[in-house]
This record gives sequence, structure tokens and C-alpha cells, in this order.
Amino acid sequence: MRVRVVEGASARDRPDQVATEEPLEIRLLVRATRRTVAITMRTPGADFELAAGFLYAEGVIHGDDEVRRIAYCTDADLDGAQRYNVVTVELRSESAPELRGLERHFYTSSACGVCGKTHLDQIERHGLTRITSEISVSPDVITALPDRLRAAQGVFERTGGLHAAGLFTTTGDLIALREDVGRHNAVDKLIGWALLEGRLPLSEQIVLVSGRTSFEITQKCAAAGVPILAAVSAPSSLAIDLATRFGMTLIGFLRGEQFNIYAGAWRVTQLETPG
Amino acid sequence: MRVRVVEGASARDRPDQVATEEPLEIRLLVRATRRTVAITMRTPGADFELAAGFLYAEGVIHGDDEVRRIAYCTDADLDGAQRYNVVTVELRSESAPELRGLERHFYTSSACGVCGKTHLDQIERHGLTRITSEISVSPDVITALPDRLRAAQGVFERTGGLHAAGLFTTTGDLIALREDVGRHNAVDKLIGWALLEGRLPLSEQIVLVSGRTSFEITQKCAAAGVPILAAVSAPSSLAIDLATRFGMTLIGFLRGEQFNIYAGAWRVTQLETPG
Repeated sequence: MRVRVVEGASARDRPDQVATEEPLEIRLLVRATRRTVAITMRTPGADFELAAGFLYAEGVIHGDDEVRRIAYCTDADLDGAQRYNVVTVELRSESAPELRGLERHFYTSSACGVCGKTHLDQIERHGLTRITSEISVSPDVITALPDRLRAAQGVFERTGGLHAAGLFTTTGDLIALREDVGRHNAVDKLIGWALLEGRLPLSEQIVLVSGRTSFEITQKCAAAGVPILAAVSAPSSLAIDLATRFGMTLIGFLRGEQFNIYAGAWRVTQLETPG
Repeated sequence: MRVRVVEGASARDRPDQVATEEPLEIRLLVRATRRTVAITMRTPGADFELAAGFLYAEGVIHGDDEVRRIAYCTDADLDGAQRYNVVTVELRSESAPELRGLERHFYTSSACGVCGKTHLDQIERHGLTRITSEISVSPDVITALPDRLRAAQGVFERTGGLHAAGLFTTTGDLIALREDVGRHNAVDKLIGWALLEGRLPLSEQIVLVSGRTSFEITQKCAAAGVPILAAVSAPSSLAIDLATRFGMTLIGFLRGEQFNIYAGAWRVTQLETPG
């Protein structure tokens, strides 16, 4: 496409690339029964990972052994673009899975009252357990992560419009990177990749996200067993509550030589604390 | 709360403020029937505006005359925090409203195939009309907006964690500002404020959002009749498609003296185009 670039009072037209956003419908297939479990606006690419990661992070599946097959929709009367916007995850199970983890998305309870604490209680009841990983990391490894993420972010450089989630070792080496217009999708793609590669839980690794950390992002990483979650921008209050309750190290405002630790500070070692 | 601030190899603890994130349950009450229509993670504050703006932008209500009353949950057995996380919107209507606009959130269709174009067709069928407002704006007004938004963003200065949506006149005066951990919530709050003030459609105004423009943000502003939508960061492909189809001016990468126009360039006047 072409874009009009304005600088001061003058304008010129030039070609431009933007981040693609398209809806993805995620379906479950159990025996002969199909069910739509989510529609998310996402950047096409790594769609199978996105579907698998979403189902894992939401507690619908618990390992790649539960997945028989992941496929795009094959209805012959669909054109190309539509066909690649529907992903069906076929389960081995003979019975429909637990969809309580999706309550936040498809909520129909008539009970009155919902609050941050209730939410944390719920995800604990649904099986999220405390992260006990004893990995530690030095501050210079943490401060080196953003540059490494950006260096690997090819599309971002061109469009400026993509969030990224990167998986790193405790020595700061990049293991995997996924991008998307939606931050939560980038995290789902990363976790889905790990799931399909048989690498879960990610108990020895660090996840870095490009933006802020919300409750949703933190919950997804906790589900994957990530002990250290770092972000370039601010966390929300509920993200901090969740990290604290489930034993996760949460880092924010990671810029230059500086960062803040909001939970689990013990995993960042080699720090001098004045006075 | 307290945060550990790391700079190089030294650390110190200091008090910190973070952006509060709590779930909000939005319910519709029609005659004696209650129905939960959404749960969103949001920053508490302007909750009635958020609920009203969400319902308007999603096409469930079409004016403030359809609303009889908006109230927090009053169940006596709830504690304070929970009570203020449930908002009930009571409608004057005797019959249940059209909830098709919420399809994107609670999607159960068995039809195969969904794509950006289908999405745009859908929102057109559900009543979104082309924006014909003939307002225009000069580039120096556009480039002055981000500083004015930031100057008015008190909480952001303290937490660094809030998105903002601001409503401006074509001479660059700020009319209203709303903030939230979620960009879509900030837009819903702004539109809900306008709805409850009887100011819709916003056919003479400019909306500026602090981050990127997604399909969702653009659709909400189009529903409110906003002719010019500007953002500090990048738009997505589907945001541009929507703006183009519905006659909206879409501006992105608004930084310093420079910005890009992705759709409806004719509303930005006083530009010299070389050669």
C-alpha cells in the first residue's frame, strides 16, 4: 500500500508496509464434534502454534500428547484467505475437554462479584501451581535482552507495528521469538511452539515481552512454568499480584542499564544493595 | 507497594505506583432478566462510561435514551472491591436487545470461513455507516496533539502503564481524556462519556490514542462517527481497510513534526505536495 508522509507542512506519498491483522477462528474437534473456542485478531503466521499455545495457556490441553492433529479448514468452497483463518485442533481424547479455563472469554455465570483475588483463586483451582524453579540471572544478562529481541525482530523494523515475545536462556541467548499485532498472541505463539516441540514447562528460561505486562500475559507465562518474565514497559497491579502468588520473578521498565523488579527479586543475583 | 530498582549492578528499594487492573463484568438488565455480556480487565474508574461506551460501540445500544439506569452491583453479601467490579446497565426496552454485535466476543457460528473482508461486511450489515463529515485539519494541529494528551495524562506520568484516548476539536483543544490499562477500554470510556453527555455522533472531532490502532479501536471510533483518528504508533492492515471503507481519516506514527496518513488524506489540508 501507499502512505502519505507529512513532515511539517509538506507531504509526499511513498510505499509502506503495515502489520497484517486478520481474524483467526480456533476450533476444537473431539471425535466428530467441532466447537469454536475463540476468535482472535492476529498477524497470520505460526497459526498452529498460536492455537496450541492458546489452548495450553487457557488450561484446555495439558500437553502435546493430547493433540492428534492441527490443520487449516479444508472446506472446498472457501477462498484462500478464509481457509487460512480457521484452525482446527483435533484432540485424541474421546470426551470433550474441560473448558472452564475459557470462562474469562465466554463468561455466563450468574454469580455476583468478581475481583482480582477471585480471578487468582479461580486460576489456582484450575490447576496453576507455584513456580519453584531455582534459576537465577545476573543484571547484565537482563539488560542485554531488549537489544537482542529487537535485533531479531525483522518485521517490526519494517512495520513498527508488531509486539514480540522472546524466549531466552539464563545466559541471555535467544531460543525463539514470535511476533504479532497482539501481545497475548505473541506469547501464545511462543508457548505453542514450546508445546509442539515438547519443551514445556519452560522452567529454565526467561520470557521477554516488548510492551506492558497485563494479567493475561503473566497468567499465560505462569501456565507455561516460566520463572522469569521481563517487559520493556510497566506491569499492571494484577500482573504483580499473580507473579507474587505463583512464585514468578516479574521485571518491568527494562531500559538501558535500568529495570524494576516487582516480584521474586531473589532470582536476580550479583546485586549490591546500598546500606 | 515497593519495587526493587536495579541500575547497573546496584539495587535499591523504593515505593512505587502501578496501574491498577481489575476485572469488570458488564451486565444488561431488560425487564427482570439479567445477562452478562462481557468481562474486561480494566483500570477502575469511569466504569459507567466504560459499560455504556462498550455497549454503544458494539452496536447493542444506539443512544442514551435507551438506558434507564446504570449501577454497581448492590448484593449485600459482597465486599467493596467486588461490588465495584460489576456494572449493570438497565435498558428501557421491553425486549432483549440485538446482541449480534457481540459475535466477535461470543462467537458460536458453525459457518466456515472468516476473514478481514467478512468482518467488514458484517459490521456494515450491523449498521455501521460511512462517515461523511467534511471537517478538515491543518498539520500543525495534528502534530501538537500528543504533547497535549501527555500533559493531561496525570496517572500515566506516575505509573507509565496507562493507555489514553483523547477527544480534540479541529483547532487542537482537548475536550475529554480517558485512561486505562487497555487501549480499547480507554476508547470505550471516551465514547461512553460522549454518549452519556448526549454528544454523539462525534462528527466534528478528532480522537488521539496513545498506542497502535487495531481493527477494534478503529471500529469503535467509526461507530461513534469520529472522522479523524490519530495514533502515536502504527495501524494494522485491517484498521486501514476499515478506515478506507467507512470514510475515516487514519493517521499513524504521529511523532514530533511528522506523521503518516493511511486513509482519508483529504481531511488534512494546507499541505504542499512536491512535484
